Amino acid sequence: MSPGLTLTPLPGIPAVSPGDDLAALHLAAAERAGVTLSNGALVVCQKIFSKAEGRLVDLTTVDPSPEALALAEDFKAFEKDARQIEVVLRETKRIVRKGHGVLICETHHGFVCANAGVDLSNAPADDVAVLLPEDPDDSCRRLREALLARGAKAPLAIVMTDTFGRPWREGLVDISIGSAGIAPIEDLRGSPDMRGRELVVTTPATTDALAAAAGLLMKKDSAIPSVWVEGLQIQGDGGLPDLLRDASLDLFR
Amino acid sequence: MSPGLTLTPLPGIPAVSPGDDLAALHLAAAERAGVTLSNGALVVCQKIFSKAEGRLVDLTTVDPSPEALALAEDFKAFEKDARQIEVVLRETKRIVRKGHGVLICETHHGFVCANAGVDLSNAPADDVAVLLPEDPDDSCRRLREALLARGAKAPLAIVMTDTFGRPWREGLVDISIGSAGIAPIEDLRGSPDMRGRELVVTTPATTDALAAAAGLLMKKDSAIPSVWVEGLQIQGDGGLPDLLRDASLDLFR
Repeated sequence: MSPGLTLTPLPGIPAVSPGDDLAALHLAAAERAGVTLSNGALVVCQKIFSKAEGRLVDLTTVDPSPEALALAEDFKAFEKDARQIEVVLRETKRIVRKGHGVLICETHHGFVCANAGVDLSNAPADDVAVLLPEDPDDSCRRLREALLARGAKAPLAIVMTDTFGRPWREGLVDISIGSAGIAPIEDLRGSPDMRGRELVVTTPATTDALAAAAGLLMKKDSAIPSVWVEGLQIQGDGGLPDLLRDASLDLFR
Repeated sequence: MSPGLTLTPLPGIPAVSPGDDLAALHLAAAERAGVTLSNGALVVCQKIFSKAEGRLVDLTTVDPSPEALALAEDFKAFEKDARQIEVVLRETKRIVRKGHGVLICETHHGFVCANAGVDLSNAPADDVAVLLPEDPDDSCRRLREALLARGAKAPLAIVMTDTFGRPWREGLVDISIGSAGIAPIEDLRGSPDMRGRELVVTTPATTDALAAAAGLLMKKDSAIPSVWVEGLQIQGDGGLPDLLRDASLDLFR
């Protein structure tokens, strides 16, 4: 039989603070879980990168702009905090849609998601908003290099995840918002299908599938920020530019 | 340590023909793979349901409507087959977007996807288009009942998958287009986060995450239509009505 995939949660990673050493925390967690960080993918929730990098905003220091105050007024029925909206606007390149108390924003990175990824849940304190990392691919590269320097072995993929909604469908799935040591998209265009017919548009979004898979073990209340995935052939390299659709090809701007 | 997830591909399922017994094929494949279909999720690619149900159209019998001919003319640069477009239109409730040689359609089920899910790759012969099952939840329920009647044991989830593109992002992920024996969305609204703060909108789309995870093992050219997932707590029940967003709440109509 062909081998399958194994996903191992890495428990015991404590609440992370600015400056914490994510590589050390993951090496210790892997040892506790009985896995070796080699020939696999380490899938890590965005929030611990953001906290380690100090991507936190104390809302008591935020002075909402007139635009943020106007949006808070629009969304009055949903009791939105104008200071939080102000932080969302600072992370936003373009508001894609607004309605039902939600701003769907394109972030400076190019992600399209609710509230530009700004989140208050699992924040380190009340009145603290957690922002997405500034350069998630770079955050992943730095963690990967630190792990490889301290005993982890290539092939080693790092995938950073966040939980996004989707148009047309209820519920949330984890997707990849950064990666290192793996091609986000596996390009099968031109390879044959089972009957030898050319597959025209088969380009699996591998890091997004890894994110969704790991998300099954990363419930928000379970203190599992990281999952180790074994059994996948780790191939290629790349980052967000491979995953974000060019505006000229996008039917949903 | 908390247990993880295991995904086992079920190989050796042959090319499926109309009327084939999917339960028998899966029980035999599970035995070959050394797994017992109990306390887990069987994630199955849409295409073998469609073929078993005879959801096939011989394109040589299709007479394109004027609308299909006009769309084929619009998409001339992309060499689209007017007969295939005609089949797409018959599966379509509403064209959501068109451009770049692609029709993004809302199907009669309510899915929004390219070409209304009509596919020529891995079809049983040239000039044959494969349609989505008419009632995917019912297809899953029937497979589940047939498996339970012949030795599989509850809790047993069945998830039917298809490979969809996404707005704003390159690449494809597998998502759930039908299910039985599991709640598609796990409702965590109202449960506390790690600091005891209420999580307002955390509703993981469990069947979509299972689909994406299994998709890592279902490469189009590898003849793996089905994956067995163990380690997840299988909870609740429901189907597509839980997963498809009501038009009145949708910002992306």
